Amino acid sequence: MNSPLQTDLYQLTMAAAYWNAGTADHESVFHLFFRRLPFHGGYAIAAGLEPALQWLEAFRFRTEDLDYLASLRTRNDHPLFKEDFLTYLGDLRLELDIDAIPEGSAVFAHEPLLRVQGKILHAQLAETALLNLINFQTLVATKASRICYAAAGTPVFEFGYRRAQGPDGGLTASRAAWIGGCEGTSNVLAGQRFGIPIRGTHAHSWVMSFDDEQEAFDRYAEAMPDNSTLLVDTYDTLEGIDKAIVTARKLREQGHELSGIRLDSGDLAWLSQQARAKLDAAGFPNARIVASNDLDEHLIESLRHQNARIDIWGVGTNLVTAADQPALGGVYKLAAQRREDGTWQPRIKLSEQTAKSSIPGRLQVRRFIEDGKFIGDAIYDVDRSFDGATTIIDPADPIRTKEIPAATTATELLQPVMKAGHRTVPAEPLEAIRNRCQENLAALHPGILRLKNPHAYPAGLEEGLHQHREQILRELR
Amino acid sequence: MNSPLQTDLYQLTMAAAYWNAGTADHESVFHLFFRRLPFHGGYAIAAGLEPALQWLEAFRFRTEDLDYLASLRTRNDHPLFKEDFLTYLGDLRLELDIDAIPEGSAVFAHEPLLRVQGKILHAQLAETALLNLINFQTLVATKASRICYAAAGTPVFEFGYRRAQGPDGGLTASRAAWIGGCEGTSNVLAGQRFGIPIRGTHAHSWVMSFDDEQEAFDRYAEAMPDNSTLLVDTYDTLEGIDKAIVTARKLREQGHELSGIRLDSGDLAWLSQQARAKLDAAGFPNARIVASNDLDEHLIESLRHQNARIDIWGVGTNLVTAADQPALGGVYKLAAQRREDGTWQPRIKLSEQTAKSSIPGRLQVRRFIEDGKFIGDAIYDVDRSFDGATTIIDPADPIRTKEIPAATTATELLQPVMKAGHRTVPAEPLEAIRNRCQENLAALHPGILRLKNPHAYPAGLEEGLHQHREQILRELR
Repeated sequence: MNSPLQTDLYQLTMAAAYWNAGTADHESVFHLFFRRLPFHGGYAIAAGLEPALQWLEAFRFRTEDLDYLASLRTRNDHPLFKEDFLTYLGDLRLELDIDAIPEGSAVFAHEPLLRVQGKILHAQLAETALLNLINFQTLVATKASRICYAAAGTPVFEFGYRRAQGPDGGLTASRAAWIGGCEGTSNVLAGQRFGIPIRGTHAHSWVMSFDDEQEAFDRYAEAMPDNSTLLVDTYDTLEGIDKAIVTARKLREQGHELSGIRLDSGDLAWLSQQARAKLDAAGFPNARIVASNDLDEHLIESLRHQNARIDIWGVGTNLVTAADQPALGGVYKLAAQRREDGTWQPRIKLSEQTAKSSIPGRLQVRRFIEDGKFIGDAIYDVDRSFDGATTIIDPADPIRTKEIPAATTATELLQPVMKAGHRTVPAEPLEAIRNRCQENLAALHPGILRLKNPHAYPAGLEEGLHQHREQILRELR
Repeated sequence: MNSPLQTDLYQLTMAAAYWNAGTADHESVFHLFFRRLPFHGGYAIAAGLEPALQWLEAFRFRTEDLDYLASLRTRNDHPLFKEDFLTYLGDLRLELDIDAIPEGSAVFAHEPLLRVQGKILHAQLAETALLNLINFQTLVATKASRICYAAAGTPVFEFGYRRAQGPDGGLTASRAAWIGGCEGTSNVLAGQRFGIPIRGTHAHSWVMSFDDEQEAFDRYAEAMPDNSTLLVDTYDTLEGIDKAIVTARKLREQGHELSGIRLDSGDLAWLSQQARAKLDAAGFPNARIVASNDLDEHLIESLRHQNARIDIWGVGTNLVTAADQPALGGVYKLAAQRREDGTWQPRIKLSEQTAKSSIPGRLQVRRFIEDGKFIGDAIYDVDRSFDGATTIIDPADPIRTKEIPAATTATELLQPVMKAGHRTVPAEPLEAIRNRCQENLAALHPGILRLKNPHAYPAGLEEGLHQHREQILRELR
């Protein structure tokens, strides 16, 4: 539903004001970043770039959009927007340069996930949609990776569409959850749109629609002989398991194998052990046990510690809404403007806490690597670039530093993806993004992946940028 | 983006299994309801019906949908769906009868927001989309009404798009927030689509894009002389207020009035008092003070108790994501099937706790009214209807009862909205829905509206239905 009206009104009134003040074309740089890692975790997984680029490319005001804007009135009933300005909007295409950290990358607080450079009016009109698209998918990809970490290799499927925040909340959550490590989704539209594997079992209503649970199982297996995972807890779970075994025997006589059973209530640790014992004893060691019911990473970790015998986790609500922190507080801040002489002037937003003041300059992130492991990220100003050794300083806690020796292997995280509004690289296959996430997680110290009280990855400002920022802050005060 | 693939895969495999078993046309009744009120509150506000009806009406499988379904394979590489079944889906239109509680109504746990009657295959294919659309909007309408309650008549605007769960999460949140009592939104697309008033101020980036805050304010006021609310906290808030006053004087000389100022950080209670004093002393008693910054109902209530002088609340993240409970646990349960003799057989889902077992029958909700106030809701079976006096019994706590005397005024909450897939009533204007919400809230005892530890509204099962359910449960065990 890409529309340029997916924005806050103030972006349009500011656009009108830039246009009116003659500053609309001033070349500016904005960064999209977050200040705190979500879920008290040790990292985040970047996601949402591809839909954001699609939105930027499709940006144009249609006649009905301009008509709507022309209908808006001030409180004393004047038109909110001048006719000339609306004509200007009608011809407008966004001509932004975008550098971005690829989707699926591990990212940290203060790192620009996007650097947006171009006319300030253009950059401003993109702000709200970019935040909306990248905030949410980054949040869910991160949540998914935590849930998969807790599952420790056991497959996790995302089953959350019915509890998601609207149709698109569900659809984009499925995409992000797959990036973060889920094996698939129940959401058929996500399967069609993104090529994500889709999975499902059946609901209680199937069982309830027959007079007898055994008949319900048999009829389902008849219809889906190669794809039957029977939900056994509609009435009595242990009896349900026994009936599923009866159905499994009938299937085997016909040359098919029961896929498994699903537990959706009760003590999942104990019931899964009972189910495993019953299935094994009956000769069905390959029938898999699926568990669902308000799961999250902490419950899964706890069930694993209790030796639950669960082969597949179905996770819904807590994953697709990122229930313990349903928004990533991503922001989009002006950081530099080009002077008439062509040089860049840093811009800063003050805050009562130095740590919350923004980071000025045109920023890039250099990631240092040792023996295939990520050892630290330095945010630096591309107009004040550095070579060799440096110290990384945490802006939230300047006592925390990390020395980087000269000649350490490094890679630049932000990569050009759009130039003057045109994509410079093709869309990445979703599978490549998903693989990058796994590779990035493997390159982090295991303590950083821990669910609670993780080890802090050294990410912060390159020493020169830190000192430059301190100096600007001192001068401003 | 209405698509029949906005569903869980298991709805389609169950549909195939009903079709295969010859039970696809069995007439059934499902109810959509939630078991617990959100936010530990005393009520919920129903919302999301209109988008749900639009989805039902638009339901049809397009060629690309059928092609996608035909491409799905079982784990041993057979087609998941038979060709005949896909042909059947291609011709399918949903022919459901829907009775619903109108949007904007106060609703309570266990009450069917929707009663869906029709062929079981049709009802099943509608489940996931109905839950997705109604769960989320009901959640946000309820959250908005709580925030507006805390604001006690001071206008609340929804500013949450950038932190919403995807584009549609933002768009439908704006709709639901307006139903729940917000005065408007910053979301321009929501303004265009739903006719909701839109509002905005400007961002820090506007101020930072000028060398001087005073110049930034003057230029903004020049462009928007009748619509300037100046954000005063980019550098030093008290100085920012003084500069806004300078701009206000210039505006007045030109025959315009400053709309107001916005505070977005710091101690909102103290700063708003300072701002009010400065603005009043300078002769601008009508300039309004807008506050934003991670607000929710509890913060607003606290700021009001501290005598904050705030005229307009801008609420974002916590409203549009319903942050303290980001999902309503709505479910959709089979409750009755028609026998060959035309009578209805109740269906029940057992649970280890009686309270969590489902409520059988074809249900309706009768709301009793005394002196214009709602005094209790009785859920009853339309095939076992009752007259006159009754006792309402809370299914979660059967000791809690409410006696209803004979001849008490009453109204039936579920109303027919769709018959055999065709709408029987036109779409309601959003303003009528919003007004219904206000009227319903006014008809509740004030203790029910309280944010914490609210008074419990008497909503539960009509005595006859309660006894009938107990009997079925006893027979099943």
